Amino acid sequence: MLYLVGLGLGDAKDITVKGLEAVRRCHRVYLEAYTSVLTVGKEALEEFYGKELILADREMVEQEADSLLKEADVCDVAFLVVGDPFGATTHSDLVLRAVKLGIPYKVIHNASIMNAVGCCGLQLYNFGETVSIVFWTDTWKPESFFDKIEKNRQNGMHTLCLLDIKMKEQSLENLMKGRKIYEPPRYMSVNQAAEQLLAIIQNRRLQGEKAEITEDTICVGLARVGAPDEKIVSGTLQQMSTVELGAPLHSLIVTGNMHPLELEMLKLFSVVDSSTFENNACQRIT
Amino acid sequence: MLYLVGLGLGDAKDITVKGLEAVRRCHRVYLEAYTSVLTVGKEALEEFYGKELILADREMVEQEADSLLKEADVCDVAFLVVGDPFGATTHSDLVLRAVKLGIPYKVIHNASIMNAVGCCGLQLYNFGETVSIVFWTDTWKPESFFDKIEKNRQNGMHTLCLLDIKMKEQSLENLMKGRKIYEPPRYMSVNQAAEQLLAIIQNRRLQGEKAEITEDTICVGLARVGAPDEKIVSGTLQQMSTVELGAPLHSLIVTGNMHPLELEMLKLFSVVDSSTFENNACQRIT
Repeated sequence: MLYLVGLGLGDAKDITVKGLEAVRRCHRVYLEAYTSVLTVGKEALEEFYGKELILADREMVEQEADSLLKEADVCDVAFLVVGDPFGATTHSDLVLRAVKLGIPYKVIHNASIMNAVGCCGLQLYNFGETVSIVFWTDTWKPESFFDKIEKNRQNGMHTLCLLDIKMKEQSLENLMKGRKIYEPPRYMSVNQAAEQLLAIIQNRRLQGEKAEITEDTICVGLARVGAPDEKIVSGTLQQMSTVELGAPLHSLIVTGNMHPLELEMLKLFSVVDSSTFENNACQRIT
Repeated sequence: MLYLVGLGLGDAKDITVKGLEAVRRCHRVYLEAYTSVLTVGKEALEEFYGKELILADREMVEQEADSLLKEADVCDVAFLVVGDPFGATTHSDLVLRAVKLGIPYKVIHNASIMNAVGCCGLQLYNFGETVSIVFWTDTWKPESFFDKIEKNRQNGMHTLCLLDIKMKEQSLENLMKGRKIYEPPRYMSVNQAAEQLLAIIQNRRLQGEKAEITEDTICVGLARVGAPDEKIVSGTLQQMSTVELGAPLHSLIVTGNMHPLELEMLKLFSVVDSSTFENNACQRIT
């Protein structure tokens, strides 16, 4: 049996009791280590589970899936994923490969950033399409995520923005020389995401285009959701470019129209005074 | 401290280790029992937690919140919610009341139907606004959910339809006589939801309106997601009106445009032959 086990979002104890039992039963346990991270490392998980973990990077999952699945028809293998196995990143390819090899699989669900963001008080019902904001480079500055946020906002919907993670990047030099030397991982902060959005707003203004989203649009910055040191702040997009949220992972929400109860909840996390806040929030007509 | 603890979607063991530790530490433990259900009852939870649970119905949470929160500033109180505390139903009102009373709170997240539906292979990224399909009565047949599904589909997005739950309904007679006698709970099945959607399609056709969604639109029916006897089927909307999915809770997804990998996953759960399936699926242009 292949178990796809969600680890939740905080630390080792965010696994479910069912998930923990499966992990302890398994012969081999892989930890997916390229799309997300917990606030604790591999060692802390190994100690808590009482099991050795095999780190699985993208290369391994995509190119060596057969060795990962080896003998999973006769023994139990677990594939651990931060969040939910079908959350922000789905592991459909692994499931499809297992099915083709005649290996049964079981999903043990857990919280994902896709649903846990509800803790800021914005209703999951009122979210439109989720977007990913990628790191800009000097030569590559895509704006497609901005158009999706605009569309959601035009429809009155909030947008969850998942922020880029760069694991195992190679410098141009190392890449060209074929050296497998990697740069330290980079995680986009709420500040960086806000700055990119502000740059797009300015660009469009210069081009005479009118955007729905402005410097004053109410946003929510979230860091380490589900962890003991979770941080949530609400304020204008401009303010998001200067808030201090600390260690990764970060997410950003751009609000659409808000129900009074949603507004009331966001005020709990406000970095501005309430009146500024109310002036800039779009009220939902219910 | 007030702990809002998500129980996940299946049975007693779907609670997280962190959640279980909190429950066992608490002086009073309430079980929210009006917006969702697990596949096991209160007794099974009590046995597993080693704690007595107090059932909290809507009346209690909305009208007697202060007694629920009593002394939560000096002792620990847990409020257990099927799924995630901020999933399909948010419990913002309870949080806001706690904050007003100066009671600190902590959220312990878990899987919600809002993210666990990813297990069918459709990417959570590609979902638009979530809708609720309510039970029609002889005199009340709202269609607003249909318009939202149409809009999502026009935008190429999938729609998660949460299906109605009727708890503590009173018959008209009992209501008029003020007798607190309740009808057995009712849970909408995928069949019933599909029938209502088919009726709307027919109505609109009679009125000469053209709908994006037809009898042949590919849908996914899900029952008891996360439980050992979970059932997922994919097929046309017409077929969803006759599939057998058994006990509650059910959910329905109406697909938008599909990525080849999404289509490949849905075929695992197909009730029709693959060619019919491909003919009716909208391919996502990526």
